[in-house]
Amino acid sequence: MSKSASTPTIGVFDSGFGGLTVLRELLPLVAGAHYIYLGDTARLPYGSKSRETIVRYAVSSARFLQQQGAELLVVACNTATALALDDLREALPIPVVGVIEPGAEAAAGACAAEQVAGQAQGEASDSLSQVLVLATQATVGSLAYTRACAALGLRATEKACPLLVPLVEEGWIVDSESESAEDAARASVTAQVLRIYLNEALHAAPHSRALLLGCTHYPLLRPEIERTLAELGRPLRVIDSARATARAVAKILSLKQAAKLGTSAVSDEATCEFFATDSVQKFERLGSRFLGRPVEGVRLVDLGG
Amino acid sequence: MSKSASTPTIGVFDSGFGGLTVLRELLPLVAGAHYIYLGDTARLPYGSKSRETIVRYAVSSARFLQQQGAELLVVACNTATALALDDLREALPIPVVGVIEPGAEAAAGACAAEQVAGQAQGEASDSLSQVLVLATQATVGSLAYTRACAALGLRATEKACPLLVPLVEEGWIVDSESESAEDAARASVTAQVLRIYLNEALHAAPHSRALLLGCTHYPLLRPEIERTLAELGRPLRVIDSARATARAVAKILSLKQAAKLGTSAVSDEATCEFFATDSVQKFERLGSRFLGRPVEGVRLVDLGG
Repeated sequence: MSKSASTPTIGVFDSGFGGLTVLRELLPLVAGAHYIYLGDTARLPYGSKSRETIVRYAVSSARFLQQQGAELLVVACNTATALALDDLREALPIPVVGVIEPGAEAAAGACAAEQVAGQAQGEASDSLSQVLVLATQATVGSLAYTRACAALGLRATEKACPLLVPLVEEGWIVDSESESAEDAARASVTAQVLRIYLNEALHAAPHSRALLLGCTHYPLLRPEIERTLAELGRPLRVIDSARATARAVAKILSLKQAAKLGTSAVSDEATCEFFATDSVQKFERLGSRFLGRPVEGVRLVDLGG
Repeated sequence: MSKSASTPTIGVFDSGFGGLTVLRELLPLVAGAHYIYLGDTARLPYGSKSRETIVRYAVSSARFLQQQGAELLVVACNTATALALDDLREALPIPVVGVIEPGAEAAAGACAAEQVAGQAQGEASDSLSQVLVLATQATVGSLAYTRACAALGLRATEKACPLLVPLVEEGWIVDSESESAEDAARASVTAQVLRIYLNEALHAAPHSRALLLGCTHYPLLRPEIERTLAELGRPLRVIDSARATARAVAKILSLKQAAKLGTSAVSDEATCEFFATDSVQKFERLGSRFLGRPVEGVRLVDLGG
């Protein structure tokens, strides 16, 4: 939990556990940092709520992390990035990194690679510049991905998938270590839901060549999504924004570090503190699934409400 | 929206829309009242959160209704009743009616009827005194139904069904007026989820004779639940607490009315005001499905958070 004076402190914020998939990518890439993660679990989910409410929750969460010493804020939540990034940048005097621009850049890179492959096979280039984005209702309603992709010359089609977050939070996902018929029945519900959403999405955007996971819960469904796409005969390349976001943070920190001549070098060992606005037991239990390692010592914080 | 001085004002509170199924039963039964309904939609769902958080949200919601003039509070939410009824009764100087005791009483009545029918067929009486309760994670964790049923000589088995609320809120339910294949595919997901939950529940409590819907969202799934029970060869009697709760309110009001000699008679026309803590548009759109009539003129209220 302790940090030296020269270690950068990075605040990472999400409405719940999904943002831990971003922290999971940050830990190896920006190893010499102190992380403070906040899951606003008492007020989740954000994805089905209005812009005004999401901005209010995001700003109070971000202010808490700054008060705890964060020198850089990662908004590891697509909904909060889509609806509150400008408000967060206005409210805080520290750099704020969202997940949408890095995600759109990763999608542009994937589409460019597909375009090269498609052109080699003689396909028209226009049909290759489309990306399908799966996200929450609020993210889709904001059109943030459509705008971020358009700025990179990509046409995005956004699809709201509101049942995926509860299915992931309930753990109704394929567990390759389980042989129980009950677990298989639960996973088949999620597969059926994915088939419905992906069918509708591919119907709306038949020329898509890449699929962007526009919610930090969705990486846990990546194998099922890839399997469903293959079953539907549309094996799109699947991209998530977690790694791209971690790279964006690393870049900002290296610039900051270069500017701070004379400060000692960053240490190699990352340290983490965790806060949640609701049950810390549940956070420790579910969070481990998202972080891919044990989540311990979570502390409860009351942000009002 | 207006009310005369002698009209009783009844506050009805839920985390979201489900409580409108209780208001729907109150309107014809306690017609001469002024209703103020609050859906705490900015902080929903309650069902997956901790006791401390649920109590905090419930008390602030109830205080708002009292400030608006409520002389009696209906907690039209199983989760808030299960975890916060005592705190609400302590915090407010007005009568507070929850949904769990009326629901347990309705279940006891149904089980007694089944017992008579079963004894006529020569079954052992012990096997007839069990009731299965479907509810949210938080309600089940509180054991409130187990206690309320035990007080009436009933053995309750509680089953958490966390995916049912999101499925209802998304409208993935049978629409008898729709012939679209997409709607049928969505309804079949809900049927599959119900089969998983009911299979597990009946396995845990094989001698149940009645099924109590322990969440105000579930009455919208009643036809599917009855169909699934029939398919599983277990056509249990299905009970919801909405009507029983409305009867409990009517009883309290008639007692209060009898005590207030000299006040004028209750008028026959109910009036309603609606408040929500998140998007009023969404509340008007979804709420109508729960109330069974148009929900209009919803006002936004900020309870902090």
